[in-house]
Amino acid sequence: MIHIDCSDIKKRLSDSEFQKAWSKAEDSFLKIQKGTGDGSEWLGWRKILADPNDAMLEQLDSLATRIRAEADVFIVCGIGGSYLGARAVIEALTSFFDSESGPEIIFCGHHLSGQYLKELVEYLEKSNKEGETKSVYLNVISKSGTTLETALSFRVLRQWMVNQFPEDVNDRIICTTSPEGGALNELVKANGYSKFEIPEDVGGRFSVLTPVGLLPVAVAGIDIRTLFYEAVSAFEKLEDNPDSLLEYAACKFALHEKGISMDIITSFEPQLNFLMKWLQQLLGESEGKEGKGMFPAVAGYSTDLHSIGQFVQDGPRNMMETFIQVRKTNERVTVPGSDENHDGLDYLFGKRFDEINTKAFEGTLRAHREGEVPTVVVLLDELNAQHVGEFLYFYELMTAVYCYCLEVNPFNQPGVEGYKKEMYNLLGK
Amino acid sequence: MIHIDCSDIKKRLSDSEFQKAWSKAEDSFLKIQKGTGDGSEWLGWRKILADPNDAMLEQLDSLATRIRAEADVFIVCGIGGSYLGARAVIEALTSFFDSESGPEIIFCGHHLSGQYLKELVEYLEKSNKEGETKSVYLNVISKSGTTLETALSFRVLRQWMVNQFPEDVNDRIICTTSPEGGALNELVKANGYSKFEIPEDVGGRFSVLTPVGLLPVAVAGIDIRTLFYEAVSAFEKLEDNPDSLLEYAACKFALHEKGISMDIITSFEPQLNFLMKWLQQLLGESEGKEGKGMFPAVAGYSTDLHSIGQFVQDGPRNMMETFIQVRKTNERVTVPGSDENHDGLDYLFGKRFDEINTKAFEGTLRAHREGEVPTVVVLLDELNAQHVGEFLYFYELMTAVYCYCLEVNPFNQPGVEGYKKEMYNLLGK
Repeated sequence: MIHIDCSDIKKRLSDSEFQKAWSKAEDSFLKIQKGTGDGSEWLGWRKILADPNDAMLEQLDSLATRIRAEADVFIVCGIGGSYLGARAVIEALTSFFDSESGPEIIFCGHHLSGQYLKELVEYLEKSNKEGETKSVYLNVISKSGTTLETALSFRVLRQWMVNQFPEDVNDRIICTTSPEGGALNELVKANGYSKFEIPEDVGGRFSVLTPVGLLPVAVAGIDIRTLFYEAVSAFEKLEDNPDSLLEYAACKFALHEKGISMDIITSFEPQLNFLMKWLQQLLGESEGKEGKGMFPAVAGYSTDLHSIGQFVQDGPRNMMETFIQVRKTNERVTVPGSDENHDGLDYLFGKRFDEINTKAFEGTLRAHREGEVPTVVVLLDELNAQHVGEFLYFYELMTAVYCYCLEVNPFNQPGVEGYKKEMYNLLGK
Repeated sequence: MIHIDCSDIKKRLSDSEFQKAWSKAEDSFLKIQKGTGDGSEWLGWRKILADPNDAMLEQLDSLATRIRAEADVFIVCGIGGSYLGARAVIEALTSFFDSESGPEIIFCGHHLSGQYLKELVEYLEKSNKEGETKSVYLNVISKSGTTLETALSFRVLRQWMVNQFPEDVNDRIICTTSPEGGALNELVKANGYSKFEIPEDVGGRFSVLTPVGLLPVAVAGIDIRTLFYEAVSAFEKLEDNPDSLLEYAACKFALHEKGISMDIITSFEPQLNFLMKWLQQLLGESEGKEGKGMFPAVAGYSTDLHSIGQFVQDGPRNMMETFIQVRKTNERVTVPGSDENHDGLDYLFGKRFDEINTKAFEGTLRAHREGEVPTVVVLLDELNAQHVGEFLYFYELMTAVYCYCLEVNPFNQPGVEGYKKEMYNLLGK
């Protein structure tokens, strides 16, 4: 279960400020349910949950099982929504250090560094732990197939795969792309690559629960049925009882109207660093238009308390803070004793690290609230596929509701064309 | 050489706005030179360059050489300024994938995740590539030795080292700490650990060019003499001719006075992601006080153009943007052909990735400028120890000058005590 605590923000709002925002949030949610808001042709992220495609989940699972058995390395080639969702879920739910089971997962196609590609190929050409040639699978993810970063990396890696695996290269390349049209469908037809579809009515930043996110997540050994069906449950639950979500969206909207211009998204769990990056895209690309929006900044605490903590405590009072916390962890690492008590920390002897981490969170929450930073706390009971599945859909819906409160279309990204146009001109397209 | 281009910001300022800010920046620089500003007891980061300690560099080099020959893993245990500087330089100047030469460098002590520590120990206990027990060295970095995250991780790892290497554990632990006092000096005395000093008058975020940063950097195989002496050259050059630096500080200050509340620090080189995190701490912890400061946000382009690009282009006009670019790269990876031209990118055939990346930068710069985002471009001729050394000192000095313009003490961090006090209360200290 996800628990949302907006009480601190509510305290900072007058009744009428909150009520006004709440009605706006209610109206916004109705727009989504009825499909009457701007951009409502992009509500596919709800449809996939209303009508789950079990055959597709089965197909993803079975391919993932084969890849987990056969591959040393699984390369995910994508950018933006075709990168962040998969990486967010994988980092949240797998170990920090390489596990022994299943392939190593490497991301590429998310920038234009030739140096990175060069080193990646060199790495792939080194033998595996058994001294054999590495077995590599490549998943390219792009609706159009022409996104510059992804398409260029795919050109390089595909050529390398053709040379490296002449006999079965076509079995090793998987395209996640539009149902029809686009550059990758041509290659699928010509070469017989495996293909998974991104529904036309699902935008990149809302695509984590399509094969865009689900295939890499399954290859990482995460139970995608649990992840997906918990999102389905969250969908059903929130249709009937959206109050906690509407309250959250209303609070965020009311703060925006009071001039709060930045939302610092943070967590004391380093495994959630990329889940916050996923959220940064989801929020930022949805709300940042027509001169509106709160900049979603990401900070990993307690690491970044030693970096931007001073600013949050004492800088301009133009920010809110979102804490994403995990209530219960499985680890039982405790503070060892020390003969000398050289560091004066013996009073923590035998305490669990997760208890201490929770106290650091609680202390920070108190201090920042006293420092006049409005805060919301999002609490996951545990860090597992179940709660992450719920989290993903919760934030997709909250983002859409909040954006309709701001009276912006949550689903387009007209500003992204700006740099692309200039770049393609310079490249002589 | 670092080149600073503030022309876009200057265009957006009136002559009198700029002149006023420029005089303020001149005065600020004098305060630093004369040591008359607030916090001027913390100017050690200049003294170490005015009077280089060659014996210390020699000692660092010789220990690093031994560790490079003997260690499989070198653990750096630190947080904040005792973490970011070393990691920033190492990531900027070494390869993306593990190199064959020298030990793997692993950071810890920068958060409170027990899970991370548990997995780290498990990883250390696995045999190395030759099937032997891993040879591990541990560098703990803390002035006081009592910083919670670092001290607790050090307790766990030190105990593990004592068990794992009973015969020579004392040779494997290196403390970087205060000249005298503090918890680590007691351990050094009792056990004969190697020790390097952090000068008392150098604060954490200004400590990268002390052993705090230099030992890990040397162990990574980077030439610390070049790094250090280029900072020395920058110091000398800027004492006589600080104009480009003063112009930069003046521009940033003038924008702050006009209500710009966020500086998005970005680069198209993924190797610089941690250098930007270093800069985030340097700026944010120095300027974010008394309700002042521009929040330093970090974005890695072009990755994050597909995430926050929309917001930067079309969100509220309250931000400036700092591009850290590299003019010349060594990589020569080119776009391969494609029989089918399936992605329509054949017009880029034979082009180098770094050329394309540069066009992406130039296109973004144009689009964001047109979108009314004031921009500064910081150009490094090449990515090497020379230019990074210059970069480090340039930003230390620029930060100090800019903070004096804001009339805040660049060297303290009173707000950081807020959460610590609350946390230690909750922990029952």
